[in-house]
Amino acid sequence: MASAWLLPEHLADVLPSQARRIEEMRRDLLDMARTYGCELVMPPLLEHLESLLSGAGHALDLKTFKLVDQLSGRSMGLRADTTPQVARIDAHLLNRAGVTRLCYCGPVLHTRPDGLHSTREPLQFGAEIYGHAGLEADLEVQEMALEVVRRAGLKDVILDLGDARLVKGILGDSPLSAAQLDSLIAALAGKDLAALRELAPVLPAHVMKGLEALLSLYGGVDVLAHARTVLPVTALVTAALDDLQWLAKHLQFTHPEMRLSFDLADLTGYAYYSGVRFALYAQGSSDALLRGGRYDEVGAVFGRRRPAVGFSLDLKTLVALTPSSPLRAAVRAPWGEEAGLRAAVRRLREAGETVVCVLPGHEHEGDEFECDRELRLVDQQWVLCAL
Amino acid sequence: MASAWLLPEHLADVLPSQARRIEEMRRDLLDMARTYGCELVMPPLLEHLESLLSGAGHALDLKTFKLVDQLSGRSMGLRADTTPQVARIDAHLLNRAGVTRLCYCGPVLHTRPDGLHSTREPLQFGAEIYGHAGLEADLEVQEMALEVVRRAGLKDVILDLGDARLVKGILGDSPLSAAQLDSLIAALAGKDLAALRELAPVLPAHVMKGLEALLSLYGGVDVLAHARTVLPVTALVTAALDDLQWLAKHLQFTHPEMRLSFDLADLTGYAYYSGVRFALYAQGSSDALLRGGRYDEVGAVFGRRRPAVGFSLDLKTLVALTPSSPLRAAVRAPWGEEAGLRAAVRRLREAGETVVCVLPGHEHEGDEFECDRELRLVDQQWVLCAL
Repeated sequence: MASAWLLPEHLADVLPSQARRIEEMRRDLLDMARTYGCELVMPPLLEHLESLLSGAGHALDLKTFKLVDQLSGRSMGLRADTTPQVARIDAHLLNRAGVTRLCYCGPVLHTRPDGLHSTREPLQFGAEIYGHAGLEADLEVQEMALEVVRRAGLKDVILDLGDARLVKGILGDSPLSAAQLDSLIAALAGKDLAALRELAPVLPAHVMKGLEALLSLYGGVDVLAHARTVLPVTALVTAALDDLQWLAKHLQFTHPEMRLSFDLADLTGYAYYSGVRFALYAQGSSDALLRGGRYDEVGAVFGRRRPAVGFSLDLKTLVALTPSSPLRAAVRAPWGEEAGLRAAVRRLREAGETVVCVLPGHEHEGDEFECDRELRLVDQQWVLCAL
Repeated sequence: MASAWLLPEHLADVLPSQARRIEEMRRDLLDMARTYGCELVMPPLLEHLESLLSGAGHALDLKTFKLVDQLSGRSMGLRADTTPQVARIDAHLLNRAGVTRLCYCGPVLHTRPDGLHSTREPLQFGAEIYGHAGLEADLEVQEMALEVVRRAGLKDVILDLGDARLVKGILGDSPLSAAQLDSLIAALAGKDLAALRELAPVLPAHVMKGLEALLSLYGGVDVLAHARTVLPVTALVTAALDDLQWLAKHLQFTHPEMRLSFDLADLTGYAYYSGVRFALYAQGSSDALLRGGRYDEVGAVFGRRRPAVGFSLDLKTLVALTPSSPLRAAVRAPWGEEAGLRAAVRRLREAGETVVCVLPGHEHEGDEFECDRELRLVDQQWVLCAL
């Protein structure tokens, strides 16, 4: 058993210094979500596979660990994403007519890592608004997302916007197989004109022209005006561009310091999003640290299609990007049963202080905590002395 | 997909009212553990099966969900208990010579529920002290456990003590198969004299006499004196009774109001504990709400046998036993982009208030939160008015 302490690849223990920062960030974000009126929910880690995967697309299926429920013989999945579960809770458990704001924070598990250095066990935090189809809900969710990075102390963050309706609007009713759609998404994501043109035989010329135009539609807010001149005018395309324009105007008003960018060909979460999607990028990081958008279809598999908009992020990734905070100071105390000592220790702990009692025989060990004070008996009184 | 919203048996969503209380208790207990000098660790949910199960006994094996790691082809397990993981962290990752205090809080999963109404996804909280073999560490862990129930607001809790060395000391080197040992444990747990006597053919008469005596050794602190007269005098038995006596004396001194009980035949966690074990029972609950004890052998499979003592509990169970707290009050605000309104909302949120912005068209819906105040425009000023 020499290697019993080795962990599977892309899974890791979180050690005390990092764990404390993750716990503090977790609290900060859940408290922040509460100030927006989000109620906390805790869906289970395991569900029947069909509940987890219905309508969620092939990518999530590949990411999901499967196992058999001994109690029922049915297949269960370990959640790889919390959003479908929260949609189920909104649809069936809460079943409210009006607006419902929900938030959650818990682990998800992936069969394969997203990238070379990605964990297979992100700690997913998210917030969602159900029941309002208007852009005010999109804006509120985006403001919450910006509040996340503000609280995390990240500067020079870029908010990138796009809309799932653009490609849908350009494609119209062009028939594409699932494999062809995957190729299209990969070509657009990679801004790969050659790969895109391989689809020319199966797509009408005006559709190809629209898709090719998408490839160059990235950059600042002027991309939107340019898009109106080069994209086909369909109801979906116009609605998407109008909505992006409205959001950009409001975000520039509420967050004048924020850098906005647009990537109209970005189709991340194509199977998922039904409208505006957004992502936050930290300076120097190629992968988004937070993604969100509108996904009105997610509740449909649970028999209740509701407007829905939200975002999620991995707390472990977020904390790794934030500056570390100093160690919290602690008090050292001798071990002993004397009533005065015990009362002094109890008082300090009730005031929130960390008091490390030195167990007999361990007087000369280094401290786990940064002990900057010590309880000492001076003139029959236990007093706090600086170290 | 009519039933896509149904969950597997013994798995449930935690809804907002309960989730909020669990989150508050989680913070309270982690903060409490920190005041004792415990450092937070977060082991992964999945590990190689042999790391999770080595030395952990057959019961944990049966409880553990297994799956295959696509990256390595090896078997992994979903943790059914966090303690072996924390022992691994102490042994290898931290690898400190001195005393190390650790705590954790996260979900564990069980293939089968422990009881008729048990969840298969407890939220396990625990605290552990490594590196000190003396009773002072046992006492500190027991005091932390009592602080848990004090913070949870539970009254009339019973602290029950026992010691894994008693049965070991009585059995001596009597050979028992794993199945016979299981029968013995079940007979002692059920105080079932007839079942116990079925082992008479395989055990020496003086061992049987000691085991039979154990059956009646439960009750108050006088049980310890009685045990000395009826149990065989072996080194392990004497050490166990001495230690229980020492702990009882100290607990009566520090917690004079606490009801102590002893059940010397209780072998819960026999495969696990190596010394004193304890459990906390709430009034009216037949199952322990917290269990702990000394388990010096747990780190041995990771190549580093260290003295270890700790406890764990299920936060969901604990919260279900505690009185519910009132809803937190919130502020209602209209939706709008006016700078004064936005500033007022932001100020309130920064002060920790929940501000529910009523999205356009949803003015006449019931509130999710208990809104007792409202932001109103009075003489060009946004002011907080009682509702």
